[in-house]
Amino acid sequence: MQQRKEVRELNIYDIAKLAGVSIATVSRVVNDSPKVSEKTKARVRAVMKEQNYTPNVFARGLGLNSMQTVGIICPDVADAYMASAVAYLEKRLRCYGYDCILYCSGYEEKAKKKAVKLILNKRVDALILVGSQYMGDGGESDTRYIREASKEVPVFLINGYVRCDGIYCVLADSYQGIYDVVCRLAEQGRKRILFLYDSNSYSALEKMHGYEDALRDNGLQVDESLKIYVKNKIQQVRDYLMAQEDLVFDAAVATEDGLAVGALKYVRQKGCAVPEEVNIIGYNNSELAVCCEPELSSVDSRGEVLCKTAVDTMMTLLNGEHVKHKIVVPCRLVKRRSTNL
Amino acid sequence: MQQRKEVRELNIYDIAKLAGVSIATVSRVVNDSPKVSEKTKARVRAVMKEQNYTPNVFARGLGLNSMQTVGIICPDVADAYMASAVAYLEKRLRCYGYDCILYCSGYEEKAKKKAVKLILNKRVDALILVGSQYMGDGGESDTRYIREASKEVPVFLINGYVRCDGIYCVLADSYQGIYDVVCRLAEQGRKRILFLYDSNSYSALEKMHGYEDALRDNGLQVDESLKIYVKNKIQQVRDYLMAQEDLVFDAAVATEDGLAVGALKYVRQKGCAVPEEVNIIGYNNSELAVCCEPELSSVDSRGEVLCKTAVDTMMTLLNGEHVKHKIVVPCRLVKRRSTNL
Repeated sequence: MQQRKEVRELNIYDIAKLAGVSIATVSRVVNDSPKVSEKTKARVRAVMKEQNYTPNVFARGLGLNSMQTVGIICPDVADAYMASAVAYLEKRLRCYGYDCILYCSGYEEKAKKKAVKLILNKRVDALILVGSQYMGDGGESDTRYIREASKEVPVFLINGYVRCDGIYCVLADSYQGIYDVVCRLAEQGRKRILFLYDSNSYSALEKMHGYEDALRDNGLQVDESLKIYVKNKIQQVRDYLMAQEDLVFDAAVATEDGLAVGALKYVRQKGCAVPEEVNIIGYNNSELAVCCEPELSSVDSRGEVLCKTAVDTMMTLLNGEHVKHKIVVPCRLVKRRSTNL
Repeated sequence: MQQRKEVRELNIYDIAKLAGVSIATVSRVVNDSPKVSEKTKARVRAVMKEQNYTPNVFARGLGLNSMQTVGIICPDVADAYMASAVAYLEKRLRCYGYDCILYCSGYEEKAKKKAVKLILNKRVDALILVGSQYMGDGGESDTRYIREASKEVPVFLINGYVRCDGIYCVLADSYQGIYDVVCRLAEQGRKRILFLYDSNSYSALEKMHGYEDALRDNGLQVDESLKIYVKNKIQQVRDYLMAQEDLVFDAAVATEDGLAVGALKYVRQKGCAVPEEVNIIGYNNSELAVCCEPELSSVDSRGEVLCKTAVDTMMTLLNGEHVKHKIVVPCRLVKRRSTNL
């Protein structure tokens, strides 16, 4: 167990900046690579000595001693969205000759911190956190362990956002994705649009803001009773909705396909016609969306593009080049028979 | 690239046998552990020298130098069944303090061999192959790379079977699982039972044998036109069945839930009532089974039990104890409204 250090340690970026070289060069100096001139080596070493800098895992990873391994952490790989993300990441990393160590952390704060700590001990070259669950409710303190990790290796967030030097975020534009579909529903005359969500993650809240703004921009009021939080298990969603009295809606938008399937089951059990009486839209465009009848229109959050982009960006970074800290990928509505948009 | 060796090299099991000690003891000798007496060390070393034995990765893994890492290979972690298996394995390995390196090999023979080779280079303590796709069509030559791997580290097959010293298999009893449900359908008077499958893997063929034997044991003929091979994508299954002329059946059993959902979509599009006119049974009891209407009865292949058993068995083995080479876990039918059994 390491003691928490109160003073921020210098990292490879600081050394690179102070020595006026790229982080790749710092790494090569650490590894005594013949690619760097003796003059540059001397300058970088002088800065390191002056700053009392000990090379960290990141610096090692960049050089000859790299394990060519990336740590991937997700809450639960049995979840369809995370499973496909892990599959895309693994495949893309493999293209570059990198292995991945997988850690399923669960959803508890303590377990997530432990996961990050354990993976860092494995001398990974970088860390990828899948899902906005790694941001807590968005407070500073919730993300401290991620910020700390990013001093050792670059950290990539898929669908999360933390503003920090060593953290790189690749996100679907979930705000705009939901905003656009709610606008379309409103334009078609839908007035009571249900919003189903199952988490208070960054991404879920972005979607909620998109929903609320779209309602307002279309002259509709935000009715709190139409924002329903329910844990994502298909039958439980149906049963939960059945238990609500006076629930009337003519459209439903969900933050995840399973929730939308649950809503569809409720609507059909009530004897209402989909899409004539009620429009339903899922999110993630997973296999679940095509299992039900009618099949669900769903917002495609572009998992493959996000993961590919994250890995490509990582490789550019590991090559010592500058990359963006935030890359946003637009969503796309895949229309099926649960809507008449 | 190593050259293929024509002569079988001695492995740690041979040395243990010849020296009259456990494999754990051999490993401790290799790692010069203080837990082993000098007398035993001398005896084991004499055998090693005599046999010209160089300790392999497995021996290292057992000892102090273990990376506490297990390699998991599956064709595609985006597949719901494999995703849940990987989640169960990772969780259970974590309980024992082991990490897992994930490799998604795809379905091609060449890629699967490459995956095994690459993972072995990572000094893993053991290897887990998920799915019977790692057996090819069951021929000797198809499994040679797995047999070779098992000389270096113990290899665990989930739902596959290869008879070999260093290979340990944990399987669902898919033959019996399908045999039982087809018997029940026949007892209820179903006469034309469709069998849908999407692979020629060991497990798929076991299921087919269960289907055929159940038909015969119930006085029904095996009609080849009712055994339909179709690649697993829900809509494609429905469309494929729509394109068949003169296809008449009163029940359908599938080797995977997605196929069963496709069959359900076909039956409903034809205007037939489920379960009154047609009974439909899926396999794996995945989330897909509860997305459709009516929800699917499905054979639960006990993924969690299989994975937990595999990891527990592995840990027993890594502790130097003897374990079974084949553990079979019975399936269970989860009844829902797609059948009236």
